[in-house]
Amino acid sequence: MSKGRLEAFSDGVIAIIITIMVLELAIPSGTDWVALKSVMPTLGKYLLSFIFVGIYWNNHHHMLHAVREVNGSILWANLHLLFWLSLVPFVTNWMGENHFAALPVALYGTVLLMAGIAYYILSRALIRYHGQNSPLATAVGKDVKGKVSVFLYAIAVPLAFANRWLALGLYVAVAVIWLIPDRRIERTLA
Amino acid sequence: MSKGRLEAFSDGVIAIIITIMVLELAIPSGTDWVALKSVMPTLGKYLLSFIFVGIYWNNHHHMLHAVREVNGSILWANLHLLFWLSLVPFVTNWMGENHFAALPVALYGTVLLMAGIAYYILSRALIRYHGQNSPLATAVGKDVKGKVSVFLYAIAVPLAFANRWLALGLYVAVAVIWLIPDRRIERTLA
Amino acid sequence: MSKGRLEAFSDGVIAIIITIMVLELAIPSGTDWVALKSVMPTLGKYLLSFIFVGIYWNNHHHMLHAVREVNGSILWANLHLLFWLSLVPFVTNWMGENHFAALPVALYGTVLLMAGIAYYILSRALIRYHGQNSPLATAVGKDVKGKVSVFLYAIAVPLAFANRWLALGLYVAVAVIWLIPDRRIERTLA
Amino acid sequence: MSKGRLEAFSDGVIAIIITIMVLELAIPSGTDWVALKSVMPTLGKYLLSFIFVGIYWNNHHHMLHAVREVNGSILWANLHLLFWLSLVPFVTNWMGENHFAALPVALYGTVLLMAGIAYYILSRALIRYHGQNSPLATAVGKDVKGKVSVFLYAIAVPLAFANRWLALGLYVAVAVIWLIPDRRIERTLA
Repeated sequence: MSKGRLEAFSDGVIAIIITIMVLELAIPSGTDWVALKSVMPTLGKYLLSFIFVGIYWNNHHHMLHAVREVNGSILWANLHLLFWLSLVPFVTNWMGENHFAALPVALYGTVLLMAGIAYYILSRALIRYHGQNSPLATAVGKDVKGKVSVFLYAIAVPLAFANRWLALGLYVAVAVIWLIPDRRIERTLA
Repeated sequence: MSKGRLEAFSDGVIAIIITIMVLELAIPSGTDWVALKSVMPTLGKYLLSFIFVGIYWNNHHHMLHAVREVNGSILWANLHLLFWLSLVPFVTNWMGENHFAALPVALYGTVLLMAGIAYYILSRALIRYHGQNSPLATAVGKDVKGKVSVFLYAIAVPLAFANRWLALGLYVAVAVIWLIPDRRIERTLA
Repeated sequence: MSKGRLEAFSDGVIAIIITIMVLELAIPSGTDWVALKSVMPTLGKYLLSFIFVGIYWNNHHHMLHAVREVNGSILWANLHLLFWLSLVPFVTNWMGENHFAALPVALYGTVLLMAGIAYYILSRALIRYHGQNSPLATAVGKDVKGKVSVFLYAIAVPLAFANRWLALGLYVAVAVIWLIPDRRIERTLA
Repeated sequence: MSKGRLEAFSDGVIAIIITIMVLELAIPSGTDWVALKSVMPTLGKYLLSFIFVGIYWNNHHHMLHAVREVNGSILWANLHLLFWLSLVPFVTNWMGENHFAALPVALYGTVLLMAGIAYYILSRALIRYHGQNSPLATAVGKDVKGKVSVFLYAIAVPLAFANRWLALGLYVAVAVIWLIPDRRIERTLA
């Protein structure tokens, strides 16, 4: 099966996830700077969610670019990733509305951890189907980034109950790692 | 007419259906384990709906893969399927909010039954257009899975008024049948 | 410019329009037949809106099928059509919640009239660009259906203030006309 | 990387942005002309937002038409543009609900200014990748329209605190500039 529809469906779901939080941007009551300031945390959360989902879309785009065909397992591995991504607006919201309390911060990390694992599973399903010597396998390589992310999240989640700011720092660290586009794949294919 | 737009439009509608329930995930009031536990049933319903719609998307993908062209009847048969799928979040919600009362469980089954029938009608419209000797017709074959699903749903709906847990068990049984990807089509085309 | 993105964007907008009303299907309070019956009018309105928008998607699909390229005027004519279609859920809702009062029925017809005019404008823009001897122009022909629709709507809107049931009858009549797929285009292209 | 998915994802996000405000069209309470009149400002805001986002979609379509390939920087420049566009419904709403008070009018202009800057950044990223002698670079040329827009917005935002109607007039002026399709690109490519 060609990869066209998997890409199109993922684009649709991610486009909805990334814009869903705009629906929750309540209009501030009033027209002065205080009213504007009151809406800032919500805007900040929206921006955070937008960047996070944007990172996954970019990396999904890069990885699928090197893919030729898909099978049933890949379709399900992809749906699994989309499921965890679809929970990002929900956990971002819960964390933000409670001034970064311990449990919401830990749950936020859990969803990020599961999305990271799902992305890793998807990359393995793709490599299994295309072969260890495929351009995709060479491009993804040892996937240091993927493994480091999952490792950092797995540390950050329990850490949230001891020191939530350290946990948040680890989340941001992983985001920064991924914000750098996957030049490995671009380079290998070029 | 080419199948491109039918696939794109179906992808769009199914992407919206599958993510609509995220909008209804109310943030729990509180930050402790009790608050998290209170949101679990809603998350469970969302997961159920996600899997169910995901199954249809996967099978739709498999079946359309073997299709070359479409006509007006196929467009309408496809819209008919999308209509019933779009009601899945609604009935899942009603059933979940009422602790699986008899009538909501029966209505849930009715929507699944109608979606199953609509999928069957779509497969017949596709075979009628491509011919009984087309790769599609060979791949779909006698469609045992499709017929068994409709049969089980038709039993489960009246059963819900006698024993709703048995009815729910039959729904899950059909889901499991479909969760297994349609290897028939993959095999025949390969 | 190729027509690919115009189709993809239209598919996205129409997919959202056609599923938006599911979000408004309030879960009935209760689990008996009375509760189910109370949700029926809303389901009926959703079905009506679904069919109506589905008709436009099908005809849009048929017409664009015969198109080779698009220009700026066509892009705007298409956006104009999408604007009026996007108001269908709103006016269907207003009409349904007020037991088919005269003014909402007239407004419903006005939106349908404007969508009909927008569809006609789009077909003219397409023919102007492709030429009077193009396959598209031959296929669309004199567009009797389009002209009759606009004519019937233009009668129905003022009629709604005298007899709203007659006006509704005319809306249904136009829907039936369009429900029949545009065999002209299929035939000419074949 | 091919531009296909960047276009598809942008189409999805813009389709959602452009139809989100329909969800907020509250049904008027009553069925007379007074009720209809009460909903008019909301419809007006929806139309304004629809036109504004439609302009960006059209210009995005024109510019990407001349593009052959994309890289990581272009993907992020595009996401940056989508972020600011996604705030258009929010600021339109805030401005409309407060009878065009000074601060909301200034914020509206700020979002338009940022979207204009983001569009300019995207065009530069595209030209950098395709080369100064590419058809894209020739077609975009000196991008007078883009520079004038950003300049007018930069004036209009502080002006809103002195005279908000003048600021609004400048926003409309920029809209009119962009409403004229980008014939430069069409002409050069032809």
